[in-house]
Amino acid sequence: MKHLLKVKIYYEDTDCGGVVYYANYLRYFERARTELFESQGMDLKKLMDDGIFFVVVEANLRYLSPGRYGDIFSVETSVDKIGAASILFGHRVVREGTGETIVEGSVKIGCVDRNLRPMRLRSDISGSFKDFARVADMMDR
Amino acid sequence: MKHLLKVKIYYEDTDCGGVVYYANYLRYFERARTELFESQGMDLKKLMDDGIFFVVVEANLRYLSPGRYGDIFSVETSVDKIGAASILFGHRVVREGTGETIVEGSVKIGCVDRNLRPMRLRSDISGSFKDFARVADMMDR
Amino acid sequence: MKHLLKVKIYYEDTDCGGVVYYANYLRYFERARTELFESQGMDLKKLMDDGIFFVVVEANLRYLSPGRYGDIFSVETSVDKIGAASILFGHRVVREGTGETIVEGSVKIGCVDRNLRPMRLRSDISGSFKDFARVADMMDR
Amino acid sequence: MKHLLKVKIYYEDTDCGGVVYYANYLRYFERARTELFESQGMDLKKLMDDGIFFVVVEANLRYLSPGRYGDIFSVETSVDKIGAASILFGHRVVREGTGETIVEGSVKIGCVDRNLRPMRLRSDISGSFKDFARVADMMDR
Repeated sequence: MKHLLKVKIYYEDTDCGGVVYYANYLRYFERARTELFESQGMDLKKLMDDGIFFVVVEANLRYLSPGRYGDIFSVETSVDKIGAASILFGHRVVREGTGETIVEGSVKIGCVDRNLRPMRLRSDISGSFKDFARVADMMDR
Repeated sequence: MKHLLKVKIYYEDTDCGGVVYYANYLRYFERARTELFESQGMDLKKLMDDGIFFVVVEANLRYLSPGRYGDIFSVETSVDKIGAASILFGHRVVREGTGETIVEGSVKIGCVDRNLRPMRLRSDISGSFKDFARVADMMDR
Repeated sequence: MKHLLKVKIYYEDTDCGGVVYYANYLRYFERARTELFESQGMDLKKLMDDGIFFVVVEANLRYLSPGRYGDIFSVETSVDKIGAASILFGHRVVREGTGETIVEGSVKIGCVDRNLRPMRLRSDISGSFKDFARVADMMDR
Repeated sequence: MKHLLKVKIYYEDTDCGGVVYYANYLRYFERARTELFESQGMDLKKLMDDGIFFVVVEANLRYLSPGRYGDIFSVETSVDKIGAASILFGHRVVREGTGETIVEGSVKIGCVDRNLRPMRLRSDISGSFKDFARVADMMDR
């Protein structure tokens, strides 16, 4: 099971090489994670008010094909691993229409408190993602 | 008297039209204002700790010539008006080498408290800018 | 008659002042213009292939209320004036839910050729916008 | 031997979490690579005119400590591997003053022609980097 987010490419996303600027894929990854959280009933803003923050610990990207102005991307996001205080997401950017994979990557986020100290994932958070991951496992079999 | 800041144009600054993306000039304007504050002995971070914030109230830009990858800009900033709770800055982006004006603009910032309510400019702040502006006036004559 | 575009605010849109970074509204304005063009049957990419480019000549913004993480904006765009080689757009960013106006602005774009020389608006382009503007006039009465 | 680039953190670099937005480190990495190329006598713009382009193939980042508004970073860049048609760069972002490592990463770029097809590194390009890498090896011993 993967979460899907549609992203349209505008002028702001491109550079003078005529392609999508390489840093911007991390933006799309984050938009997708935000929507995935919300789709599981979690509001990052409310979690912040509760003193629960998420910081990115690691990010990895492989650029397979250039994105272009006017492209519509489908950003596919999976929950690949849930740790005690971290979640590993897998991201894949696919161009709608051609189905070509543009970028593949992963982002590991850590759960921290207001002072950026690591903090166990609250059970309702890991719980909702565990369900998500479990279904994913089942569907992969 | 104008404050000068050198800005180099990288890939991130451009778009697929082959020119500097139009929103980015507001970034250069802000970098220049930040440096102007610091050149007058003011640290925006310390002011924030004191509960003094600046928000942009108005921005106007005229795009005269396209900026390009590899350009080095000189961002000229002047203090055009100091109000009770606001400061009006004038900005001009000039390409080094050719001397061509790329963009001209102005930005009005307002002084606010932690709750974003307007707040009189503290006398040391307006004072240091008044001096700056006075010299500018004298040089304009 | 106004064109409406929904824009959701993510982390990437905000700054450490806790609000939407002031330059980013020009991004939303452009997304909205792109969609407006497409809604009128014009594809900016195809126009570029035909040697027709649009460059921003002027932009003006008034910041009325801060945008926040998690906000959903409605960007309202109107065609305010069609010149021989330029189009003036009006933009208004409204927060969904509260209906509060966040930013108001205008952007004037010029039509240019591959060498960035001004170029008369092709009749089908001005035509489709004239229709748009005419309806707007009628609805304003 | 490492190339050093100073990067100052402004409002535009941060997000509402109060730290530098995670995608922006890829911007600093690229600024550093651009300056490294230029320090070796290569002008990316002229190479593009010659039909030689560089595209990012892979990027990896580890976020060790949050960057903040007002920080001054030193971006250290090394040439870690030179392939037939690719170069692997190592990047480390260190906060000036404290010497703390903020982010570590690597970026692999590939050399391509105008049609984005892989292309052997021209000997003068690999040559100048080989020299750079060799010195680095010697200094590491």
